[in-house]
Amino acid sequence: MTDQEYMLRAIQLAKKGEGWTNPNPMVGAVIVKDGKIIGEGYHKKYGELHAERNAIASLTESAEGAVIYVTLEPCCHHGKTPPCTEAIIEQKIRKVVIGSRDPNPKVAGKGVQMLREAGVTVVEDFMREECDQLNPVFFHYITTKTPYVVMKYAMTLDGKIATKTGASKWITGESARKEVQHMRHQYMGIMAGIGTVLADDPMLNVRVEGWKSPVRIVCDSKLRIPPGSQIVKSAEKYRTIVAYAEQKNAEEKIKILHTMGVETIYCPDEKNQIDLKKLMADLGNRGIDSILLEGGGTLNDSALRAGIVKEVQAFVAPKLFGGVAGKTPVEGIGVELPSEAVELKYTDICQIGEDIRIKCQVCDKKQEESCLQES
Amino acid sequence: MTDQEYMLRAIQLAKKGEGWTNPNPMVGAVIVKDGKIIGEGYHKKYGELHAERNAIASLTESAEGAVIYVTLEPCCHHGKTPPCTEAIIEQKIRKVVIGSRDPNPKVAGKGVQMLREAGVTVVEDFMREECDQLNPVFFHYITTKTPYVVMKYAMTLDGKIATKTGASKWITGESARKEVQHMRHQYMGIMAGIGTVLADDPMLNVRVEGWKSPVRIVCDSKLRIPPGSQIVKSAEKYRTIVAYAEQKNAEEKIKILHTMGVETIYCPDEKNQIDLKKLMADLGNRGIDSILLEGGGTLNDSALRAGIVKEVQAFVAPKLFGGVAGKTPVEGIGVELPSEAVELKYTDICQIGEDIRIKCQVCDKKQEESCLQES
Repeated sequence: MTDQEYMLRAIQLAKKGEGWTNPNPMVGAVIVKDGKIIGEGYHKKYGELHAERNAIASLTESAEGAVIYVTLEPCCHHGKTPPCTEAIIEQKIRKVVIGSRDPNPKVAGKGVQMLREAGVTVVEDFMREECDQLNPVFFHYITTKTPYVVMKYAMTLDGKIATKTGASKWITGESARKEVQHMRHQYMGIMAGIGTVLADDPMLNVRVEGWKSPVRIVCDSKLRIPPGSQIVKSAEKYRTIVAYAEQKNAEEKIKILHTMGVETIYCPDEKNQIDLKKLMADLGNRGIDSILLEGGGTLNDSALRAGIVKEVQAFVAPKLFGGVAGKTPVEGIGVELPSEAVELKYTDICQIGEDIRIKCQVCDKKQEESCLQES
Repeated sequence: MTDQEYMLRAIQLAKKGEGWTNPNPMVGAVIVKDGKIIGEGYHKKYGELHAERNAIASLTESAEGAVIYVTLEPCCHHGKTPPCTEAIIEQKIRKVVIGSRDPNPKVAGKGVQMLREAGVTVVEDFMREECDQLNPVFFHYITTKTPYVVMKYAMTLDGKIATKTGASKWITGESARKEVQHMRHQYMGIMAGIGTVLADDPMLNVRVEGWKSPVRIVCDSKLRIPPGSQIVKSAEKYRTIVAYAEQKNAEEKIKILHTMGVETIYCPDEKNQIDLKKLMADLGNRGIDSILLEGGGTLNDSALRAGIVKEVQAFVAPKLFGGVAGKTPVEGIGVELPSEAVELKYTDICQIGEDIRIKCQVCDKKQEESCLQES
């Protein structure tokens, strides 16, 4: 096997942690001696051992003089677990091949430096692009302390997320809907507007065995969420956060919600709407590193205007609804001129069952400015 | 060179006729003797020689004992030009390799039969799929006598063809707009609604040298088209047809339009709207085999409801307009339930410049029934 193949194996291992490591990154490690893999591991779950330590724990023989391939720079600080650089040095590993750099200010090159000072050979930036693709969420969160927000919607080829009567079951096929369940597992939080809750009374959970359900976040400026709604009733089981913006007469409702296990965040802007930028800062402080935004047209427009959306994933079904009263993925205020549009960059287009998924990065100037302010 | 390569060359030649042969098909032919191409040709323009005769005219030596590769079954009837089967037999060509079958009831296997009776070896259905893809328009038109209608629109990834103010210049980039010019060359007619004419006063022509402009068809039930509009003023230069549905007080306007070179078609349904199905039959009788529908949301919805649309081409730009008042590609009445949607089948998805083009066949049951009725 080649260096490339060992690193691909490490990437493959890293992905096994998907959905469970947040807000930590996914990381994989492979230990090789005399052309043979003698240990491998990955970061399985937040709070548990890092990939390097899991690989070391799996060793079938001494790692003295071995090479370790690791998708992310090993940590050198005491966090929930002791630093991985120490373990590598202790094991007398000869060489460390690293994919991504760790932008975490506590690491950021110090891990590499510590290894080199101990006489270990270090190769940096090996297959960095492939490794970086594992952790866009981590790279965003560790530098901004706000969640990485992915706006997701399913629409027809004529841009409708519901017919004129509001009916939307179903737009996409089974494969695409399964992929959405996977995204809910992948990202730490899911956010919807009160409109969706009142109309559909959804659970916003994951119904696939082996996948976790996300923290549910409802934007509900006037605190209209019914205590009898499925979301509130299941708040003891799935962590649930309701953001609101009007305190008048809210005291009683808040007490009920808290009793039922719902967390609340008061987060108004000057117009008594929810300040989404502030809300993201608050959720970031609560350790939520990523949010799947499954909003309706109004919430989606607000999120874009607030500059909090980093990625868009549109599922496009091969059908047409028509109807001047059909609902579209982004409504609200919108722009006046085409030149004011939110600019995107396509990153991946693929067919999922009978539907297409279009992935984009948001590269709007406003968003970029907002990123700069954040970081 | 292999049989495949000779047929690919014939397909390549056929495509050179694009935009000029309608309502005839695009056809290419290659004559091969002793492993060498000794003649090739294609159908250049409606009314001129067929591909086989052009190939024969280009011969550099006698075709006796040669093989001819032709993308479509040779004709055997006297049309604008004498039958090609005769020429092949006269030239003592030994073998004919055919791609597509000719569904034209005047040919449909009779060409093959005539060749075989004259002792010529015939291979049928060779690379038929590739050859069939040359002429979806011809296959539709020759069997239904109605135009093949392609609905084309450019929208943002949130399904808007204009902002809330109606602004739509520009949604897609230069490459996609150039491709639309190419489509106008490719199809024989272009159809728009009076709304578009009144709002934008467009020319609906082609502004690229070497490409032809389409016949312009305006759906204008109340005959509101201004005699001073660009379309009417240029009707002497580009064939122009206005369809209308209300005769009251129309006489004077019609006289003016006729004087200016505009053809008119009176084509009402029981609600004094334009009967699009009847209009297609009328346009088919006038020899128009294909129409690029560049409608707004209302006309697009009517066309889908009338079951006249065979193909959809959506250009999707990497941007978001938002806005509850933004315009979408199909508006009008629309469906109530997702299960009533017009069903499509993706046939090609590709990137054109910064935009995506999604091509689909309409495979709605209603449309299929309507096709069956037609044929």
